[in-house]
Amino acid sequence: MSSCFNGGISISLFGESHGKGIGVVLDNLPSGEVIDLEKIGAFMARRAPKKDGTSTTRNEKDIPEILSGLYEGRTTGTPLAAVIFNTDQHSGDYGNISHIARPAHADYTGFLRYNGANDPRGGGHFSGRITAPLCFAGAVCAQILKHRGITTGAHIQSIKDVADERFDPVNVTAEQLEQVKSRHFPTLSETAEEKMREVINAARMDLNSVGGIVECAVVGFPAGIGSPMMDGLENVISQLVFAIPAVKGIEFGNGFDCADIFGSDNNDDFTVRDGKIVTKTNNHGGILGGISSGMPIIFRAAFKPTPSISRPQNSVDFKDMTDRELIIKGRHDPCVVPRAVPCVEAALNIALVSALLKNPRI
Amino acid sequence: MSSCFNGGISISLFGESHGKGIGVVLDNLPSGEVIDLEKIGAFMARRAPKKDGTSTTRNEKDIPEILSGLYEGRTTGTPLAAVIFNTDQHSGDYGNISHIARPAHADYTGFLRYNGANDPRGGGHFSGRITAPLCFAGAVCAQILKHRGITTGAHIQSIKDVADERFDPVNVTAEQLEQVKSRHFPTLSETAEEKMREVINAARMDLNSVGGIVECAVVGFPAGIGSPMMDGLENVISQLVFAIPAVKGIEFGNGFDCADIFGSDNNDDFTVRDGKIVTKTNNHGGILGGISSGMPIIFRAAFKPTPSISRPQNSVDFKDMTDRELIIKGRHDPCVVPRAVPCVEAALNIALVSALLKNPRI
Amino acid sequence: MSSCFNGGISISLFGESHGKGIGVVLDNLPSGEVIDLEKIGAFMARRAPKKDGTSTTRNEKDIPEILSGLYEGRTTGTPLAAVIFNTDQHSGDYGNISHIARPAHADYTGFLRYNGANDPRGGGHFSGRITAPLCFAGAVCAQILKHRGITTGAHIQSIKDVADERFDPVNVTAEQLEQVKSRHFPTLSETAEEKMREVINAARMDLNSVGGIVECAVVGFPAGIGSPMMDGLENVISQLVFAIPAVKGIEFGNGFDCADIFGSDNNDDFTVRDGKIVTKTNNHGGILGGISSGMPIIFRAAFKPTPSISRPQNSVDFKDMTDRELIIKGRHDPCVVPRAVPCVEAALNIALVSALLKNPRI
Amino acid sequence: MSSCFNGGISISLFGESHGKGIGVVLDNLPSGEVIDLEKIGAFMARRAPKKDGTSTTRNEKDIPEILSGLYEGRTTGTPLAAVIFNTDQHSGDYGNISHIARPAHADYTGFLRYNGANDPRGGGHFSGRITAPLCFAGAVCAQILKHRGITTGAHIQSIKDVADERFDPVNVTAEQLEQVKSRHFPTLSETAEEKMREVINAARMDLNSVGGIVECAVVGFPAGIGSPMMDGLENVISQLVFAIPAVKGIEFGNGFDCADIFGSDNNDDFTVRDGKIVTKTNNHGGILGGISSGMPIIFRAAFKPTPSISRPQNSVDFKDMTDRELIIKGRHDPCVVPRAVPCVEAALNIALVSALLKNPRI
Repeated sequence: MSSCFNGGISISLFGESHGKGIGVVLDNLPSGEVIDLEKIGAFMARRAPKKDGTSTTRNEKDIPEILSGLYEGRTTGTPLAAVIFNTDQHSGDYGNISHIARPAHADYTGFLRYNGANDPRGGGHFSGRITAPLCFAGAVCAQILKHRGITTGAHIQSIKDVADERFDPVNVTAEQLEQVKSRHFPTLSETAEEKMREVINAARMDLNSVGGIVECAVVGFPAGIGSPMMDGLENVISQLVFAIPAVKGIEFGNGFDCADIFGSDNNDDFTVRDGKIVTKTNNHGGILGGISSGMPIIFRAAFKPTPSISRPQNSVDFKDMTDRELIIKGRHDPCVVPRAVPCVEAALNIALVSALLKNPRI
Repeated sequence: MSSCFNGGISISLFGESHGKGIGVVLDNLPSGEVIDLEKIGAFMARRAPKKDGTSTTRNEKDIPEILSGLYEGRTTGTPLAAVIFNTDQHSGDYGNISHIARPAHADYTGFLRYNGANDPRGGGHFSGRITAPLCFAGAVCAQILKHRGITTGAHIQSIKDVADERFDPVNVTAEQLEQVKSRHFPTLSETAEEKMREVINAARMDLNSVGGIVECAVVGFPAGIGSPMMDGLENVISQLVFAIPAVKGIEFGNGFDCADIFGSDNNDDFTVRDGKIVTKTNNHGGILGGISSGMPIIFRAAFKPTPSISRPQNSVDFKDMTDRELIIKGRHDPCVVPRAVPCVEAALNIALVSALLKNPRI
Repeated sequence: MSSCFNGGISISLFGESHGKGIGVVLDNLPSGEVIDLEKIGAFMARRAPKKDGTSTTRNEKDIPEILSGLYEGRTTGTPLAAVIFNTDQHSGDYGNISHIARPAHADYTGFLRYNGANDPRGGGHFSGRITAPLCFAGAVCAQILKHRGITTGAHIQSIKDVADERFDPVNVTAEQLEQVKSRHFPTLSETAEEKMREVINAARMDLNSVGGIVECAVVGFPAGIGSPMMDGLENVISQLVFAIPAVKGIEFGNGFDCADIFGSDNNDDFTVRDGKIVTKTNNHGGILGGISSGMPIIFRAAFKPTPSISRPQNSVDFKDMTDRELIIKGRHDPCVVPRAVPCVEAALNIALVSALLKNPRI
Repeated sequence: MSSCFNGGISISLFGESHGKGIGVVLDNLPSGEVIDLEKIGAFMARRAPKKDGTSTTRNEKDIPEILSGLYEGRTTGTPLAAVIFNTDQHSGDYGNISHIARPAHADYTGFLRYNGANDPRGGGHFSGRITAPLCFAGAVCAQILKHRGITTGAHIQSIKDVADERFDPVNVTAEQLEQVKSRHFPTLSETAEEKMREVINAARMDLNSVGGIVECAVVGFPAGIGSPMMDGLENVISQLVFAIPAVKGIEFGNGFDCADIFGSDNNDDFTVRDGKIVTKTNNHGGILGGISSGMPIIFRAAFKPTPSISRPQNSVDFKDMTDRELIIKGRHDPCVVPRAVPCVEAALNIALVSALLKNPRI
């Protein structure tokens, strides 16, 4: 299934960039959960295009209309469905390129996969727009987690070669996560923000684009949730994070760096602190054997530069198999990373609620 | 489900390190596929402990007994089950540590997850031994792929700070993949092998361990297979690769490096070569929008250093909540990476057969 | 998941009787299938309330709005979503009974299942209204089947003690199925229709209700589709048919009657006719070992009488645990069977498309 | 997947009638459940061939060997695998009929489904023998249910035209269920047993076979478990019961009879008894809206006569497409119903444990 996730909860995403509407159905949510629609709006606003030059100038209000699953402000436990009606498409912008594969986009692979029947306008179902209902689902899950004292949050770890500070993997707090989420441009360091904005603006002026890394943390997640082998927390989080277009890598804890240090330095010693078992360091990123250890969960996802750049590019017309020069028109993000931050959180939140619901206590 | 994968095929793994047997059931395999048991043995031998100081001295013959699903040398299409009976356990080695959490192991998280009822001997179901039936499943899938002209292969990309050459992401060939798979210590460069062996042996002598990176490639996989969003090739490959204990990160194509270059450098131009659409470079790693592009699929997985080291470590007894010093006895791999190479291939092979079977042609 | 089906295609249903809207997402449909919206409308009209006294006088136009998954009249292959906005609810009718369990309804069990948070108005997600998006999904699948020469159809086998003729299990034709589907009151025999209408009207006048049996047939389904054990055609059809409220039983072929005859009478002899293997009789109902035999698929589903009757009934208030007399107001079907006929077809159509897509040919 | 069930627990069945072994893997069982192996043996003995003329004379000891998932007598929570090695096959008996379709068997449909690669000996994976590991899984689940005060049991409701008494759907007790399960030939009435034995023996002497109906009941199952639509108790129980070869129909509560009575007679009035909400009658069979009501769960499954009869039958050779007379040799049950009783319970037990685990309480 392309756009279904079936774990402790089910998510079914739908929609195309230039279709009538996009949305999501969430099945098997716990019942009776109070859902604050303003907080959902705030979550989704973090994904909306910024008015500061770092993203597209498209006007995506993206206000979800909830059709079912909420009654008197609480989840019913039966399927929760939300729709966002598309309103600001300029389909004309795409008319001339429908058979010329935009490099690093899914035009060509999608054409093959669906035998040419998929909606090519704006990438169709491959569009980054489908992360809007993903964020809606993630915003609902964020509240379910919050009711249980669990906070998730992410920041821009890097844009091109400009790095932010990192979360302290042992001592990161819910307050820090809330604080960085409240920032318009979510970095831990204000200096990093400034430099990152410069890099993005420079890329935009140069008709180019840049990528970056998002770092995500979870505080308050109980120990003992998850499973070994195929259904561990890393498995499910990564399965969901790769649903976000432009993600090319994911790493947990110290990630790829673990490959370059000795076991004696990588192993996190256990100790008892305040009557609770903790590790002194957190290279493992809060997950051992697919199961939460009670330490903060930490991971990072790498995003490629926005594929849509306004420079001439070399490509092919995949219908007549000829080489073509391609000029992409339209309004594009010079960097998707700032808007991707809540998307990563959303994928994570879905994975965590799913894992909680899969923990068998009968 | 901890140890089930349900895609185009189903995999159900079972077993504990010191239990009676470990094994796997594969459901929904295509019928009539000729399976060469010698090739399966060869695949599994690549995972078996080396006799060269780089791995444990345990004697794991790991010859799978096939109970069903093969008839006259071909898959029946009904479930294929295989069992490996455990024979060389030294359970006594583990007796004294069953409640002292081995750092970077799942002893503590597994204890919580299963309320203390899981088998603690040798890690139980969390043991790396369960990758033996994973390799069996992957070896079966390798042959199904081979029948369709698809070759997968992996090599040791790095051990600690010693790097091997990388696969050429555009021009890697099936022959190169077969060649590296035939090597006892699978590197592309013999110099790299030599230095890696030194690093591993030094770690072993020093009662320490090291990690590394495995790089994997696929040649001959048809374009147009996979799906957007949650069921793309990256999603499924990563879900399965994280089933291998000790994996902390995965990246496709140029991976995390994509975050540090401009879009104009990252985008892979399309062109027509020999009547076929290809990309001139392959930063995308053969997957766009979750769907294969026809270019080689390339990814890397990071492995942490073996958690079991013979040095004294600080830990806690999670039953009585006291700090304890821990000495791990037993025979352990100073580095799991050489033996992990076929495991990564196995996870990949399962993902690819699953994706082929999910491509709807009716 | 309450309202998801995950087979060769995925279906995610949502909505509550008195919520904003009801609908469905279909994932993994084959791409490029021409979908005729008029035929979908005609299919759904068969489920709409009749204006002839046999059903509720509620005005359920139930015109689905397609939000995604169709492009230029063909399926894109990416998720197809449709919504029906609710317009004609009289929620006031239900106000006084929200804690008094309507007998044979799910008010009490739903209250327990969702800890009192589910939407009680009109049965909420338990309402028969959710069969409208089920019919939409089934109508889409009907066309996908039709493109492959497969026709499904159902008729009212009985209403209370009035029986219609049965399909000839060997010789039923696509034409007969189309013919019965075109009837406003779908029986094979016009005499049966007349008597059934009398029974329904008598029940209505008597503030009572009646049930009945729907018989369904499939012509043109290829032999060799399905699977043994848990994923056979009977398993999946029955799983889906029981999604229709009020179904209490299902039987395939000669069904329960098989329990009362000798093996020599029940076994269907094979023979070759027109170069094709057929059976001379069709007690097996077109399915052997979960797999289609090429003979017509035949099954019947039993529907209980509409639970909502206007007579006083004895019940309890499940909040204060007291016995109460209950008078159900509102407009109800004296018999759901005529409107259930397309619902049964819809469940069947989904099962058949799913089975076709699960048949591995790679 | 042919032989996987994926609900709150996962079941993966494998094996062929004449292969090396048959078995099952259960994933996601609750951990720490004490499992009494003698009780498992007793459960499986109920399925073993009787020595009284009512079943095959094959010697199927069917002692399962547990390979994983049990540690110190309790479930570990990680996958539980069991194997039964095949020992008493007379493969020669089947040699001459491998391409002549046995009527009412899956020889022809299985041949098509698997392109001729499936194991034809004794029906291969389509054999009734695969219900042995199903019974093992069901016997494990029976104990998990019992730990929670839940008892399931079944009896032979009818053999051909000889009917047993029925369970009292309101007042059936755990003691009655245990009592009937302890009987060698499980009927409620001893007179019925005698007559049924006569019918079966007469059929056997006449080289014929007979079918029958199994009735099943559940006592002590908590109210509020299950889900509406696709994942209700009826949906899941029926999906699993149809995994048993020879089942042609299933009905819940008063089942098909509900189609022939008025709503006022079918509706079960609620009342408060001993401080608990109950229904005065139990036509609904303990399930409303897919969710348990707290009343006994009641259902019946119809079994066709054993397809294998020793009389000459007309059939075809599906390889050369010619009409053929067929004489089936071998030792066959003249009636599968007595041995099917525990199989129905097993399917039910799996469904119930699955439903309990799916009830989200987080």
